[in-house]
Amino acid sequence: MTKGLNTREKIISKSAELFNVHGYHGCSLSDIMEATDLKKGGIYNHFKNKDEIALEAFDYSFKKMLKQFRKRLDYDKTPTEKLHSIIEVYAELASVPGMEGGCPIFNTAVDASNTHPLLKQKANEAINSLKKYIEIKVREGIASGEFRKDADQNDLATLIIITLEGAIIMSRVNDKSCIDVAVKTLKRYLKERIYKP
Amino acid sequence: MTKGLNTREKIISKSAELFNVHGYHGCSLSDIMEATDLKKGGIYNHFKNKDEIALEAFDYSFKKMLKQFRKRLDYDKTPTEKLHSIIEVYAELASVPGMEGGCPIFNTAVDASNTHPLLKQKANEAINSLKKYIEIKVREGIASGEFRKDADQNDLATLIIITLEGAIIMSRVNDKSCIDVAVKTLKRYLKERIYKP
Repeated sequence: MTKGLNTREKIISKSAELFNVHGYHGCSLSDIMEATDLKKGGIYNHFKNKDEIALEAFDYSFKKMLKQFRKRLDYDKTPTEKLHSIIEVYAELASVPGMEGGCPIFNTAVDASNTHPLLKQKANEAINSLKKYIEIKVREGIASGEFRKDADQNDLATLIIITLEGAIIMSRVNDKSCIDVAVKTLKRYLKERIYKP
Repeated sequence: MTKGLNTREKIISKSAELFNVHGYHGCSLSDIMEATDLKKGGIYNHFKNKDEIALEAFDYSFKKMLKQFRKRLDYDKTPTEKLHSIIEVYAELASVPGMEGGCPIFNTAVDASNTHPLLKQKANEAINSLKKYIEIKVREGIASGEFRKDADQNDLATLIIITLEGAIIMSRVNDKSCIDVAVKTLKRYLKERIYKP
């Protein structure tokens, strides 16, 4: 039982890395066999097909991403510190071991939005969770009196996601300075439109 | 000769659409054969392999994208109008016929950055051209006295690209309102940091 579980975990974690680097269509079952050092039968013992692996690998990657945020935000005391941390953790996401391929949500959004309805749905749900997570921090800051009453939670959450995701993708082919521009602009946005003067 | 050229053009334009929707790895030679109504030989008369088609299809898509900008900016008289147009044309990019798959540059950046060095290089060059194009408009506005002397051309060009590209990708799985947030924020940025008060 334990061995089976470990093999299953290994297939998911290795595939998650592969899918994030090469995309759903760029990663074959042979690639997964090679990365896990398993034969076809060893994989089919646990999963029906590549699809089933891809869906679980997405969940695994998204959980890993959320863990990065929680790991840092657990040490923050105020909503102000928490918003700063969200921006900084996000900006460093592509440097986290196993996430070198960039953000799994947006990679999947590009890779699967026209070709794989179930993965597309998962990407959509992940974006909504992330948005909600940021929006809750804005509401906490309004409630605690740290943030302006008119701080727009939807605009801020959307902007953090699109600006940093755009920068993470641009940095994959261009230099990394676009990530600094994203971080600088978002922090200024917090100062000018979210925090109380 | 003319027929050969037309066939070649048809292969490129149809493949460009396919690659933009399904990605490099998600689009096979059979898909191209089906879309162009050609047999394998009819395609190999013009191209050595899928790679060669993909590189020319990228150039085709990027030219088509630049044409969208020029088509509108040709009617603008002032640098202020031109920057506004850049943001508006960019935001509507994914609605242009044949570009429904989103922005070919960023799709390629995600799809090929780890797997296809030549396509990656093309995506990088395209981002640099686009950045330069926006930066020139900023310099024109500074020279004409419409824009602030300290208007930062690099920051603005980077922000327009990452914010709108992030929004275009998010809108593929989520709703379209993120594009409105991007446009609103960028226009406010122009007002507050680029145009003279």
